[in-house]
Formats: sequence, C-alpha cells, structure tokens
Amino acid sequence: MSTLETEMLEIGRRARAAAHALRLISSDERTAALRAIAARLHAQARAIVSANDVDVGAAERNGLGAAQIDRLRLNQERAVALAESVATIAAQRDPVGAIAEDWTRPNGLRIQRVRTPIGVIGMIFESRPNVAADAGALALRSGNAVILRGGSDSAATVAAIVAELRAALGEAGLPQDAIQIVPTQDRAAVGLMLTGLGGAIDVIIPRGGKSLVARVQSEARVPVFAHLEGICHTYVHAAADPAKARAIVVNAKMRRVSVCGATETLLIDDAIAAQLLPPIAAALREAGCQLRGDEAARAVMPMDAATEEDWRTEYLAPMLSIRVVAGIEQAMAHIARYGSQHTDAIVTEDAVAAARFLREVDSAIVLHNASTQFADGGEFGFGGEIGIATGRLHARGPVGAEQLTTFKYVIHGDGQIRP
Amino acid sequence: MSTLETEMLEIGRRARAAAHALRLISSDERTAALRAIAARLHAQARAIVSANDVDVGAAERNGLGAAQIDRLRLNQERAVALAESVATIAAQRDPVGAIAEDWTRPNGLRIQRVRTPIGVIGMIFESRPNVAADAGALALRSGNAVILRGGSDSAATVAAIVAELRAALGEAGLPQDAIQIVPTQDRAAVGLMLTGLGGAIDVIIPRGGKSLVARVQSEARVPVFAHLEGICHTYVHAAADPAKARAIVVNAKMRRVSVCGATETLLIDDAIAAQLLPPIAAALREAGCQLRGDEAARAVMPMDAATEEDWRTEYLAPMLSIRVVAGIEQAMAHIARYGSQHTDAIVTEDAVAAARFLREVDSAIVLHNASTQFADGGEFGFGGEIGIATGRLHARGPVGAEQLTTFKYVIHGDGQIRP
Repeated sequence: MSTLETEMLEIGRRARAAAHALRLISSDERTAALRAIAARLHAQARAIVSANDVDVGAAERNGLGAAQIDRLRLNQERAVALAESVATIAAQRDPVGAIAEDWTRPNGLRIQRVRTPIGVIGMIFESRPNVAADAGALALRSGNAVILRGGSDSAATVAAIVAELRAALGEAGLPQDAIQIVPTQDRAAVGLMLTGLGGAIDVIIPRGGKSLVARVQSEARVPVFAHLEGICHTYVHAAADPAKARAIVVNAKMRRVSVCGATETLLIDDAIAAQLLPPIAAALREAGCQLRGDEAARAVMPMDAATEEDWRTEYLAPMLSIRVVAGIEQAMAHIARYGSQHTDAIVTEDAVAAARFLREVDSAIVLHNASTQFADGGEFGFGGEIGIATGRLHARGPVGAEQLTTFKYVIHGDGQIRP
Repeated sequence: MSTLETEMLEIGRRARAAAHALRLISSDERTAALRAIAARLHAQARAIVSANDVDVGAAERNGLGAAQIDRLRLNQERAVALAESVATIAAQRDPVGAIAEDWTRPNGLRIQRVRTPIGVIGMIFESRPNVAADAGALALRSGNAVILRGGSDSAATVAAIVAELRAALGEAGLPQDAIQIVPTQDRAAVGLMLTGLGGAIDVIIPRGGKSLVARVQSEARVPVFAHLEGICHTYVHAAADPAKARAIVVNAKMRRVSVCGATETLLIDDAIAAQLLPPIAAALREAGCQLRGDEAARAVMPMDAATEEDWRTEYLAPMLSIRVVAGIEQAMAHIARYGSQHTDAIVTEDAVAAARFLREVDSAIVLHNASTQFADGGEFGFGGEIGIATGRLHARGPVGAEQLTTFKYVIHGDGQIRP
C-alpha cells in the first residue's frame, strides 16, 4: 500500500469515528459549534484575507484568467459574508431527528420515519474557497463528517478557513476530525476518495468545472450528488404578461451569467414573437448580452445565427440562444432534447399551460413566472447549499442540510408479534 | 458490439421510451392497468401453475435442494395470492404527483416538492417467481418501467407471468415495454445491466442470495437498492415484560427463519438472564430452534457454545446465537460491531432505555417491543415491497411504490426576479 493510500485511509477512519460521535450529540451542541465557527471566521477575517492574498498573488504570477482570479478572491467583505452564511446555517432548524412521516398500523404498531445523518461526505472542489466554509457548516448542521479536497489555486485560503473551523470544533468540545482537509495536491488522492476510502465515504459532492464533475461521475464507486451542467430554459408562452416576460428573461440570463441556474436558451411562442421579442432583445442587449437566434427569431430581430451546437451549450457568459417555437408541445420537446434536467421556467398567465409545463418537464426545478436564477439553496430557504443535484435519487435540486440526511424507521410496539 | 449488447441496449431504449410515456399518463390509467393485471393473473392462475410444473420438474431432475424447490414452487394458492397482491397495489394511493413538502418564501414564491417516477428499474432476481409480478406491479404503480432478469430455474414460470402482465398493459392501452424481460440466461446480460445500458437504467434492485447481491453491489455503475444480509438482533433489556419478551423472541426467530428480518442473535441483560432466559430458551426449543450461547448464557441454560463467527452469521435457519450483556451500552456496541444495519429491536418497559436504543442504533429499522419480522413492506402498509434497502441514500428499509419515486421542485411565482 502506498504512503498516500495509507494516509487517505487513516483520514477516512478518522472521519468515520467523528461521524459516529456527531450522530449522538445533541442539536444544541451542533448549533453551539456552528456559532463558534461563525464567530471565529468573523474574528479572523483579516487573517483569512491575508492567506487569500498569497493564493491570488500566485494565481496572477501563474497567469490565471480574470474570471478564475475573481472566483478565487476573498476580500474583507466576502470573508465577513462567509461568517454570516455560517451564522444563518446555525440559526436553521436542525434536520436530524425530524420526523418526516408518522403512521399507525391496524395492529397498533406506530411507524415513524426519522431523519438521521448520512455519515461521511467527500467534498471535491476547485477554486472557490467559500465552499470549504459552507460545506463544513452544512455537514455539521446535518450531523455529518466531511473530508474536503480543494484545488491547488486556493490551498492557502482553504487551509486558513479549515484551521478556524477545526479550532471552533475543538472549542465546542466536538471532534475536530468532523472537518478534515486532504493535505496533499497529489491528484491520486481524488482517485482514492472516489473509491470511497474502504467504505469510509458515503457520498461524494464535486463542485467545479464540467471536467471535474464528469470525472467524478464516471469514476466514483460511491453515490454522487452533482450536476454536470445547467442548460436552463425560459419559455415565454403566447399568454405571457409582456412586462413580466421581459424582466424575468433579463434577470434569468444576466443577473449572474456564471451560475448554473442562468438561462442559456430563450424559447418564445411564434404567436407573440413579433410583439415580445423586440423589447426583450433590446433589454438584453442593453444589459450587455449577445444574442444568437434561429431563422424565425432573426426574421423579427437582426442577430447572429444559432447553430445546433448552441442549443447544447452552457455559455456561462453574456450570450443567449433564442428559438421561436410553435407552442408548448414544441417548447417541451426542445427542453427534453437539449436540456440538462436542471432548471426550466415558463412565463404565462394561462394556468392550464403552466400546470402542464410544471407537470411534464422532467427537471429537478421547474418554475412558473419566475427567474431560473432562483435555483439556489439560499433562495429555497435552505440557508445555503453544498451543491445542486440533477440525479434522480434522494437529493435533487439544491442540497442543504436536510438533503444531507437519510432516515430510519422507528417502530413503537406493545408486544406485537407477526402472525 | 456483440449481438447481446445490441439486444440489451435495444431493451434499454424501449424501457426509456415506455418510462417517458408512463410518466405522463394519469393515476387512473395506471390503476386500471394494475386491475387488468390482477384479473389476468387470477384468470390464468392454472396456466401459470402448469408453467411452474415444468420449472419444478427440471429442478427436481437437476437435484436442487428442498428449500430451493420450495422457493420456486407456485401452487394454485400461491398463484392466486400473486393476483391478490397486485390487487392490493392497485388499491394503494398513487405516490406520483403527491406533494411531499410545500412552503412559501418571503418574496411570495411558492415551492412544492412533488413526487415523480424514478424512470427505469433494473430488477435482477433468482428463483422466487413472484418477484416478477410484485416488481412489475410496484413499478407500474410508481410510474416506472422495469427490466426483469430472472434466474434460469424459474424461467418458464416468469415467462408465463410476464406474458400476462404485458397482455394486461396492452389491454389497458399502456406501452407493453413498461415491463420487459431479458430473453436470455447468458450471464453477460447481468453485467450489461449493471453498466446501466448506456444510461437507460436509473437503479438496480437485486433480489436473491448474498453472492448475487455482493456481485451487484460491487460491479454496478448505477445506484443499487439492496441489503447484503439481515443480521438482526433482539435485545431483552432488564426492564422487559417477561411474557412479551418470550413471545417476541420466539416470533422474531421462528415465524419464518428464511426471511431477512428474522432475528439471528438474542442479547439479554445479565440482571434478568437467570430469570428470563430459561423460559425463552424452552419456548424456542419447543418451536424447533437450536441455541448457541456465550459462557454466561450456558451457565444459565445448557446449550452449544457460540464462537466469534456466530455473531457474524445470518443463519436463515432454526438456529439462534445468545449473548448475555452487561446493559444497553454493551448491547448497542454488539449491534454496531456485528449487525448489518437492517433491523434491530429492544424489549423493555423502560421508556428512557427504549428512546435511547431507538435513537442510537443506526439501522434502517429499529423497533421497541415488537418482532423484527415486521421488517416487510406489507407490514409497513406499502401493499408489497420490491426489496429492503440498507443503503443510506434515498430508499432505506422496505421499498414500495412510494420509495420508487424521486421528486422535483415546482415553483409558483408572480414575476419574481432575483435581486
């Protein structure tokens, strides 16, 4: 067994032991530890920013792009926001021990479905250092241990953050190994995590670019909560309110173009394209968005031509593809063919069309008359999110603390035996 | 690509298309199809029994054991029971479209978590032919397509059952490919199913012996709902009611010894062992059970000595291991060390001890004052079960129709855009 393998298995064993301890402590103890983390992150914000300066300096010397450096950067304001995010999670209701269902059988047996922690979460992420604080806090809220493996670009920042998380765990009398960081940038460590570290990891959550997620999804031998991409659609139906449609489309595309819930394709009914597309397109362009349309869209408004490839592309950039459709049937067929089952919206005042779209579109999140950028754990009221999942099992959509729990059945009898 | 691979991928494509159609039909249509299946199974019970005679005859010629032949045999009574089980599932509430959660955000967005079918289920099973009818019915109830792969021993029976299921689907106007059977006993077909058939299978459910389940769990590249074994414990606490304890232990072990919820180890507090173990042991022996105990148990009642291996053994036979423990702490430590996180029970009149056991024992099902043999979808009120899962994600415990659904978030807005 290689040294790395021995070391990783030891991390897994420690995480499992910490998870066992965490499962048995009370909600109040977890809350106290989360408050201690928030306090330390707030008090040490300046030190964390200093560590981040080291990472940013190295990134600049290594010639990283502006977008990458922006993802990496943690200024004082962002560092304080980290602490505030943890404080929000500390204030959340505790999902562990919550009774999800409760029924009594004719023989008097009372059966309860009770939430319990999953166990150990393996978190593999790239440059955003805030993931370490969010993942650590959500794991703790849900009674899980977490093994973090960040990217080399943010190594100093993540080390500084995790040192505060572990110090706070110690202050609160909780096992520090509930939050561990893989101490090497050796890529083989990721491969070992994907094997589950001898049964020590229950689920892997990758956060990062498409190539990272694709590797994790193809190689992981344990369950994965993830989404490969967010090819999200906003469909403006013939019965849409024009003002709502314009505001929603501009927000869905342009509020932040780099998030997975950003709309990448606008579908618009031909019955109202001549009337609604010009003001929508003008508002998008004013916001700095480039447009690519099919022939029918270009007949209404001059714009670049969209190719087949555009319908399959997650731009993550100020670029929108536009297709004119013959109605809801064609809109839903387009989404089924090109979408990524992440988040899709319909804008309409027609309740029947809305109900049909919400029922038939098979995505993790479907919206009526709202922006696709609401695909976010914070906006769902989850306090934060550790990722957004498009798999069909267990966790789908934003993954917050509750989604990091499993359950067990608790049965109360009075001597029942089975005939 | 081999002929088998081409054929299996085609089965996967058909299942996916059928799943797409099933997702959009109404609950009433699925109910009507289930009633048609129950009616056909009832009407054709004699023909199914004849097909079964062929399988049983071959099994006898091939020298299969009595237990295996019993699992395989489908007499008139059991064939009618198949139809009745499907009728029960037809009468169940439909899980698809049920709203599991529903909340409104401060900005007026209403978010609903709505149950939707998983998609395509791959079912790999051995000799019990009733699995084909139960799996087909539960998949249909939950809006899923299913691909069945049975064992060679029951091939004629399963073919006869599936022919009726598909005929009933046709009568009801539903796609027959919602229930398909793999038409070959080539073992490579199982390997192909475990790869997911190019994304066509969403979850695999193995039903059969430990070696089948172990192979599926180790090779599957898609999620698996399963349990490897049921090493279930009944813990008789010092404050147990003696009559309840005796009745529960005898039922938990001896009602049916071959089911996964059968108790394999009795743990009993030393404070009451001298008083309670003799009547319990006598009742067990009267029921035909052999006993193996640790030293303390043998000091109270003469019996064979249990070895370390006994604590790890799922007997599935009229055999029980018995250990005297110093209290709840030691009992829970034994369960954590040797159990399979399937089903464990405590017998006590002490509410504090019961609450502690139910909270701290980390098994899919934990019971207080009831028999471990209640680990069964029918006893949970699920109408039937397609398996029992000990994994930590999504489905845990008995898997009925509701457990074969996933969910999506449905969001109702009034023009909300994200600040």
